[in-house]
Amino acid sequence: MSVIPDDTHLQIGSLLFEGLDQIDLTGPFEVLSRLPNSTYKIYARTAEPVRDLKGLRLVPDATLADAPQLDVLHIPGGFGQEALMDNDEVLGWIRQQAAGALSVFSVCTGALLCGAAGLLMGRRATTHWASFHLLPFFGAIPVNERVVVDGNWVFAAGVTAGIDGALRLAAELRGSEAAQLIQLGIAYAPEPPFNSGSPETAPAPILEQARQAVQDITARRERTARRIAAGLGIDV
Amino acid sequence: MSVIPDDTHLQIGSLLFEGLDQIDLTGPFEVLSRLPNSTYKIYARTAEPVRDLKGLRLVPDATLADAPQLDVLHIPGGFGQEALMDNDEVLGWIRQQAAGALSVFSVCTGALLCGAAGLLMGRRATTHWASFHLLPFFGAIPVNERVVVDGNWVFAAGVTAGIDGALRLAAELRGSEAAQLIQLGIAYAPEPPFNSGSPETAPAPILEQARQAVQDITARRERTARRIAAGLGIDV
Repeated sequence: MSVIPDDTHLQIGSLLFEGLDQIDLTGPFEVLSRLPNSTYKIYARTAEPVRDLKGLRLVPDATLADAPQLDVLHIPGGFGQEALMDNDEVLGWIRQQAAGALSVFSVCTGALLCGAAGLLMGRRATTHWASFHLLPFFGAIPVNERVVVDGNWVFAAGVTAGIDGALRLAAELRGSEAAQLIQLGIAYAPEPPFNSGSPETAPAPILEQARQAVQDITARRERTARRIAAGLGIDV
Repeated sequence: MSVIPDDTHLQIGSLLFEGLDQIDLTGPFEVLSRLPNSTYKIYARTAEPVRDLKGLRLVPDATLADAPQLDVLHIPGGFGQEALMDNDEVLGWIRQQAAGALSVFSVCTGALLCGAAGLLMGRRATTHWASFHLLPFFGAIPVNERVVVDGNWVFAAGVTAGIDGALRLAAELRGSEAAQLIQLGIAYAPEPPFNSGSPETAPAPILEQARQAVQDITARRERTARRIAAGLGIDV
């Protein structure tokens, strides 16, 4: 990826779907909507408001069918991703947009959607820690980092990693000064009150509870991933 | 503030208004919507979708008039706060809700709204760095920290500080284990790619640009703050 000339307008767009994890979208929106000379719009299957997995309602700007070719395609994740793993309309849209985009930006289990679209073959990628072991089923090379850049793709790990990934992407697109200006505007100098944000640092009983909380959805995701792997001819 | 018994249901609510900075709301929502035994709803003046300052549309769950007494009252900020500084309906709602709430949680320039409602007299508080100097006009004691806890009030500084503040509040309400479990679920182990998130750490030319970008809104906010100070009998 190289910095895009300042006078080139950027069309940025997010996929919005029922049951997404809203900050997978709103974190990147907060950063990338501040890029100079750009338009950021939200696209969904219909024009109706969409509920995130905790009930927050977001309104799309247009339907998938009405989206122009995007320069930056952003795919968020969340439990609702699982219901779209066989959805030809959504997967076809991701495939078509990704083919023409300057950058593709996957956050959290948005990576699984990109995988189901067949776009992760041989790609270095990351996703939420609870789904990290599923990446090889899509032909991806798992990289346990918070943000992974592979060619014109940027992958952010779980949920709030989308903010870090978006700042990285902002720098790739418009240079590091533009990204730093955004970071200062949104006062992103994080001070988590605990050190419990990753499996490597969380206390063991907390990690065990967190794993149990996502046990069912993780099992469903694994069954889907195995089925997709078979379809892609991947032997994991 | 003390940890609330697990079997006490918590009604959590955010004020939603035109021109807010969306992550002032969506950051805290991401954290507090995961608190056990709680309900989180979004309240606005009307039931219509509301645009954030960059155009993201959020849908309220109910109107201000239909809100029950909240246990946790959350007030976000953003440029749109300025248009509400004389709004009796909104300020009256904040005043009334704050009087009965277990906790009040202000993010960013939400603190100025609380100040206009007359609620910051003698209180240790913080807000976005660009408005920090305005706190004394509302009778507040400015504390230059990312999260400030004063009695049953929690103040988060600018924008993304709402995530840190919400985790702190989660711990105050339900204990540190509950907060750590949420932190792990949302993978909040931030790695900003630059060190430009506060005036103290940003490169000088970036800070200068950022100040210029908010010069007009800051001047308007100061005129309003001076007028409110006069009304409150505060001599700054």
